[in-house]
Amino acid sequence: MFANLIHHIRQGDRLSVARAISIVEDERDSKNEILSTLFPFTGKAYRIGITGPPGAGKSSITDKLITLFRESGKSVAVIGVDPSSPFTGGALLGDRIRMVTHHADRGVFIRSMASRGGQGGLANTTQETADILDAAGYEIILFETVGVGQVELDVMQATDTVIVILVPESGDDIQMMKAGLMEIAHTFVINKADRDGANKLYTTLKNILHSLPDTKDSWYPNVIKTVATRGDGMDDLFSGIAKHRTHIMETGRWKVNLDMRYQRQVKARISTMLGNSFWSHNHQSMKEEMLKPHDKRIPPYRLAESLFSQ
Amino acid sequence: MFANLIHHIRQGDRLSVARAISIVEDERDSKNEILSTLFPFTGKAYRIGITGPPGAGKSSITDKLITLFRESGKSVAVIGVDPSSPFTGGALLGDRIRMVTHHADRGVFIRSMASRGGQGGLANTTQETADILDAAGYEIILFETVGVGQVELDVMQATDTVIVILVPESGDDIQMMKAGLMEIAHTFVINKADRDGANKLYTTLKNILHSLPDTKDSWYPNVIKTVATRGDGMDDLFSGIAKHRTHIMETGRWKVNLDMRYQRQVKARISTMLGNSFWSHNHQSMKEEMLKPHDKRIPPYRLAESLFSQ
Repeated sequence: MFANLIHHIRQGDRLSVARAISIVEDERDSKNEILSTLFPFTGKAYRIGITGPPGAGKSSITDKLITLFRESGKSVAVIGVDPSSPFTGGALLGDRIRMVTHHADRGVFIRSMASRGGQGGLANTTQETADILDAAGYEIILFETVGVGQVELDVMQATDTVIVILVPESGDDIQMMKAGLMEIAHTFVINKADRDGANKLYTTLKNILHSLPDTKDSWYPNVIKTVATRGDGMDDLFSGIAKHRTHIMETGRWKVNLDMRYQRQVKARISTMLGNSFWSHNHQSMKEEMLKPHDKRIPPYRLAESLFSQ
Repeated sequence: MFANLIHHIRQGDRLSVARAISIVEDERDSKNEILSTLFPFTGKAYRIGITGPPGAGKSSITDKLITLFRESGKSVAVIGVDPSSPFTGGALLGDRIRMVTHHADRGVFIRSMASRGGQGGLANTTQETADILDAAGYEIILFETVGVGQVELDVMQATDTVIVILVPESGDDIQMMKAGLMEIAHTFVINKADRDGANKLYTTLKNILHSLPDTKDSWYPNVIKTVATRGDGMDDLFSGIAKHRTHIMETGRWKVNLDMRYQRQVKARISTMLGNSFWSHNHQSMKEEMLKPHDKRIPPYRLAESLFSQ
């Protein structure tokens, strides 16, 4: 039955893919075995991250990109990532729109993921879901995230091309985007560029990008104006992505990304196992320390060192 | 000489406090010993976090709060936290303004901290700096951060009262504040409340807060309108903080915060030591695996498990 599931995933069977993703999301026992068996078939998909503030038009742009990739003969998977928050109820509403447009298209797979409470786990689950889709043969994987939290940043950092969508009103959002997103973006889109302020934002962005240290393998981020709902500028964006893809293939960065994702998965797993194992043995010592009044406790560093060296 | 430093810190000697903070920031050898020796004298200061988007007036509000706390006879330390980013050059400019106002006041200590590159380290360093100031006798510690990144969130989560400053134009920022900040705030300030839109934001905020799950120990966050530059509403904010302080003292939450900070410090240290120790032994195995082509590698989970069980 298990070999059957793997076989069907490799054939691109959508129900089997969906089932495997659910197993990964639910952290079920067979998760490790499924991911490990699929692993040799991963490392082929091109991974694109799309992010930006709410209302910037991420869903419309994702929708148009799906169409353009499909027209060029590529299969596309979309992973919508939404860290849990009471304020983002509507963030993944875009799904429904896309579902309608691409509903009948067997070359498109769409899945939304939300945090199930586990701190830090969402970015890992997202990667594992992408690996399943990669092994299932999807050639393009689009990650769509909202906002600028650490999870979104982690997701973006594990993609090959990072696209940040802004709107003319986003002047302040650029300031908010300080947590490292700006530095990892390869393409900026000014969507709704028919509105006032588009040219001003364009100039501001160009100036900021000019002052950035070069940390992107000699790739100078491009800035593209779009009106996604009308399709304006979408060809520019599409060819911009292709250009960046060619660039990172030539510089070897694509291979480095693949290696880094591998190492990150190993390290994340090790870190979890080390912590679990350590605290299952030392839980009691911490508990006893907590029973003392604060000023009678062993100082934190000393306690850490004494527990560690036992 | 070391005992001398500790003695002078305990006497509140500003130069000695500054020296100890530099030792912590630079991760010098004596850091552990200084923090451990000071530890029994910590756990007395009340810790307040102030955050919000750039331009919201955090510095003005911090400045006025310092004055109000000083008038009520409390000594105050301010830690400005700024994760490194090329976009935040101006974020801590506020320091200079405050320095002028409170320059001659020996009961005020101000320090800015920026990331020195080490991922995740800034939040720890900030805590350790606060512990030094706590041991030096500062009764109020204000943490001022910009933005909504993970570091800022970590810093806020380690305080007793979290204040989020917004401006009437912040409607969109509320949406951006999804990474958990909204859920941990105890007080919202609508600054520059003489501008258009203040009442609308007030209503929006109240509605959102009403829909939040109760995760704050039965504390319903207050929303306060201010015009900090004129001092309007500052008394309300000041008494709002006092009210929250009384609340968490009565519910025992204050003690829980203290315990959580202690545990977090132990766990962070353990996690670092576990990782360092593990990878110093297994670095070579990972390196060898990376030399193989991607599809010939041991799947990440299996590699992790095999390295871990060795």
